Amino acid sequence: MNRNLKVILAYCGTNYHGYQKQANAITIQETVENACSKIFNHKAWIHGVSRTDTGVHARGYCFSVETVSQIPCENFVRAVNTLLPEDIAVLSCEEVSEDFHARYSAQAKEYIYKIYCQRQRDPFLNNFAYHYTYPVNDELMNSACKKFIGTYDFYALCNNYKADIKKAENTIRTIFDFNVKVYNNIRIFTVKGDGFLYNMVRILVGTVLEVNEGKIDVNDLTDIILSKDRSRTGRTVPPYGLYLNKVFY
Amino acid sequence: MNRNLKVILAYCGTNYHGYQKQANAITIQETVENACSKIFNHKAWIHGVSRTDTGVHARGYCFSVETVSQIPCENFVRAVNTLLPEDIAVLSCEEVSEDFHARYSAQAKEYIYKIYCQRQRDPFLNNFAYHYTYPVNDELMNSACKKFIGTYDFYALCNNYKADIKKAENTIRTIFDFNVKVYNNIRIFTVKGDGFLYNMVRILVGTVLEVNEGKIDVNDLTDIILSKDRSRTGRTVPPYGLYLNKVFY
Repeated sequence: MNRNLKVILAYCGTNYHGYQKQANAITIQETVENACSKIFNHKAWIHGVSRTDTGVHARGYCFSVETVSQIPCENFVRAVNTLLPEDIAVLSCEEVSEDFHARYSAQAKEYIYKIYCQRQRDPFLNNFAYHYTYPVNDELMNSACKKFIGTYDFYALCNNYKADIKKAENTIRTIFDFNVKVYNNIRIFTVKGDGFLYNMVRILVGTVLEVNEGKIDVNDLTDIILSKDRSRTGRTVPPYGLYLNKVFY
Repeated sequence: MNRNLKVILAYCGTNYHGYQKQANAITIQETVENACSKIFNHKAWIHGVSRTDTGVHARGYCFSVETVSQIPCENFVRAVNTLLPEDIAVLSCEEVSEDFHARYSAQAKEYIYKIYCQRQRDPFLNNFAYHYTYPVNDELMNSACKKFIGTYDFYALCNNYKADIKKAENTIRTIFDFNVKVYNNIRIFTVKGDGFLYNMVRILVGTVLEVNEGKIDVNDLTDIILSKDRSRTGRTVPPYGLYLNKVFY
């Protein structure tokens, strides 16, 4: 009897060439698929909720996978964690209906982006947060975040030179919430939406930072979104501050 | 004119074969010496406060270095940080008298050791804290820590099979303070002493954990110290939970 499993995963992306399988480079997908295949005793194909780029992390990634194995979910979690390297961990597993697909069943996703604000570099945050040395105005940044909440064509907020974002593709998305909060000298941007375009979260954060830096006027943001002009939005901040935090089904 | 500089350093030890220079392996000392030599425009010899093992971290390491360069301390900090890799950072630099030597002038050192207590492995704490899955009794552990405060021959608390701890060496040390505090699911052991023997902090923590596990009776600890019998103290916990936190002069 075929079973369909929904699995929640956390990983530190530092040592991987992103999520998606590719030749000649170690990826999350390949590493997890190999571990699953060993446990199931047959080749497993895992269906991830989305790709993540090199260096990007995940705290609550979701994949689904079909198997004929009858291993109980709890045992699967224990077994797969003994096979996985220490920078990847399966957090939970449950059996779901055959209709469930990690990617197509997702209703919303939440990403966080961490920046740390101090003059000195911190060797321990190196792979985990973006070192940001401009003085920060949290109120202004939160005002900027608010401007992106809603349903828009976010063409100006994606790196559309990539082959997988074609002009014809639907670039309309809904952002439900977007804010930045202070935890000591770390700021955490949290954005929740029904989907995100290529590099969209990193450009959202980059644009808010450029508002903070006085390079973009907060009152122009709506116009800028509507212009669909990538040259008017901010830079793509580095991948290592980004975490796929949670997927909603 | 010769100058003597006192430099505070932080580093993530994950990618280094410890502090001390050696052939065929990248170490903190070598990396920092090379950066200093470039800035001073002459070969620099740095004098570190102590060795640290592979994987051990530092938040407030201190070294001293002599130079004929007249570069202002502030400029040195900026310049050396541009040359150092991202997992090493110089935090401060000041000019000190020629008598000062990072190792021999040290009055006390403070180490911290981090353990995290939850069933699931956390891929983000992997290189930064020891995953400890036993139920923890903080009160009992603190009682155990207290037993080590004082001046003792700590021969039973060092790995004396290493060539650099010879039977003849003075193994008497004074521990000023030792405790464990809770920060969410992370416990931080803090120990301050006038000096530490080889692996001593890791064995101190391992012994307290074995008290927590019921393998060693807290009331036997003083006897165990006085017995000078390494076989009666606890295991050496892994290096990656250990941080040289602060040096006192």
